Amino acid sequence: MMPSRYTEDELIARVFAPIAGPAALGLKDDAALIEPSPEATVATVDMLVAGVHFFADDPPGAIARKALRVNLSDLAAKGAAPIGFLLSLALPADWTNDWLKAFAAGLAEDAATFAAPLIGGDTTATPGPLTISITALGRTSRFAPRTGARAGDAIYVSGTIGDAALALALRRDAKLAARLSPLARAHLLDRYLLPRPRLDLVSLLRHHASAAMDVSDGLAGDLAKLCAASGVGAVVEAPTVPLSDAAREAIALAPSLFETALTGGDDYEILFTAGPGFAPPDAVTRIGEILAGPAAPQFRSAAKKPLIFKKLSFSHF
Amino acid sequence: MMPSRYTEDELIARVFAPIAGPAALGLKDDAALIEPSPEATVATVDMLVAGVHFFADDPPGAIARKALRVNLSDLAAKGAAPIGFLLSLALPADWTNDWLKAFAAGLAEDAATFAAPLIGGDTTATPGPLTISITALGRTSRFAPRTGARAGDAIYVSGTIGDAALALALRRDAKLAARLSPLARAHLLDRYLLPRPRLDLVSLLRHHASAAMDVSDGLAGDLAKLCAASGVGAVVEAPTVPLSDAAREAIALAPSLFETALTGGDDYEILFTAGPGFAPPDAVTRIGEILAGPAAPQFRSAAKKPLIFKKLSFSHF
Repeated sequence: MMPSRYTEDELIARVFAPIAGPAALGLKDDAALIEPSPEATVATVDMLVAGVHFFADDPPGAIARKALRVNLSDLAAKGAAPIGFLLSLALPADWTNDWLKAFAAGLAEDAATFAAPLIGGDTTATPGPLTISITALGRTSRFAPRTGARAGDAIYVSGTIGDAALALALRRDAKLAARLSPLARAHLLDRYLLPRPRLDLVSLLRHHASAAMDVSDGLAGDLAKLCAASGVGAVVEAPTVPLSDAAREAIALAPSLFETALTGGDDYEILFTAGPGFAPPDAVTRIGEILAGPAAPQFRSAAKKPLIFKKLSFSHF
Repeated sequence: MMPSRYTEDELIARVFAPIAGPAALGLKDDAALIEPSPEATVATVDMLVAGVHFFADDPPGAIARKALRVNLSDLAAKGAAPIGFLLSLALPADWTNDWLKAFAAGLAEDAATFAAPLIGGDTTATPGPLTISITALGRTSRFAPRTGARAGDAIYVSGTIGDAALALALRRDAKLAARLSPLARAHLLDRYLLPRPRLDLVSLLRHHASAAMDVSDGLAGDLAKLCAASGVGAVVEAPTVPLSDAAREAIALAPSLFETALTGGDDYEILFTAGPGFAPPDAVTRIGEILAGPAAPQFRSAAKKPLIFKKLSFSHF
């Protein structure tokens, strides 16, 4: 027998209202109310579908947190601090109260961590897979665009690149996964399940980034997009791309995974450019330089040979 | 053979960029950029699923327009003029370029009519049904809340009530539909397919509404929500609820449809309350009065007898 489930009103009152910020008006009105600010508003949306962007049996809290974090990552890349988020949720026929409580608990934890409260939403039933759309709103005193990279700027990335893509590759190759140390496996899987939106870099990006975006579809493809938007070219010294110890361990076992790391996506680190005066902090690594263009970016090996990738980025479409 | 289809980049450049406003930054960045304003921002989201909220074979332009309009209706009810909207779209396996062009053409027409440009979005594939989530952003100098109704306020609705619910009832009862005049059938179906967001009432609501919401889940249920939010009761004189000629014709054939009209939903008219000084324009009709409460609203017949409804409102959940 199907256990009893929340009504829509109970769901709002018991599950979602506790995550809501003041702008949500208790989730009792038709819309959120955001007070005026002298800063510009930044808005972004991402939709995630079970079986496409995550596995339906992933932990519900991790699904929720990933859905929120990919949006917060877009805000961070623009130099924007979160105002909050709106959640649309299409629930498949077999949802349970326990699943929703765990989903909401994950959201609540991240809403608190990143000062990004729920400000509105909509819940519906679907005959299809669980589908989540999150619209995140933020504010910035200066928007870091994709379009501002200029020849002579240096290219930087935050954190490490490729961990999430390698986790996905290992999930699909159990033999390879078994050869990796448990610590490395756990590190990569954690980076896949839980991207870390780089809101710690918001101030840096506002003040120093000539162009910025988050790395969501693979470093190579995303740099190509940034170059196209800015009308420039680029050269990246591939050996300088920062890798985690776990990624290095995996690539040592299967060198072709280096290409996976550079093109695979789901990093949610920040790719940005800055002029000669910029002194990078430890959290970011210089990986190359912007050239006159427009031109496709080049990745070079340690021997300064061009690397040719099978494909530049991952697409769910 | 499947005809060739747009890549994600082509889709953005050819189908969606033409609908985009300046805040969208050409849909080439990670996020929309909305300049500061002295007015508050209002944000709302609605998700629509094929087979739940519309029929998968409804005209694609009408699906698009309905998805946008239900959100604009929420803005209107709060006294907010549109800034623009973000669109998430999960496309089922069988989508075609022609379907998407027609979908976008419907969106484009409404974006122009209602001065509500596309400012951002996300497109993905789904193994399930077409799923649309639209987040609409607007601005207002005064938010018309659900919570402000006070005993002694009069209750008003805009336009006519029940047309969309009757259209749905007729779609499910071909015998009854056949007895209705073609003109009445066409009128009701049009109101079901294409709600009319009452953005013409934004100024009135800002200046005069003590409480407001749009009628999306049925007048009776929505008034109950407004009363609960405001901590009041209400009495509605059912014969004063404004009906279209088409609705009157349908109800004359099947009197039980009067209850359908009052409880069925999808009206997207505005339900609001205003104090004694308010002189209503022709576009709105006084239907009752707010009483001290909290209490469930009463609907009364011409003979002043209470009407008891089987259910107060429609739920997709």
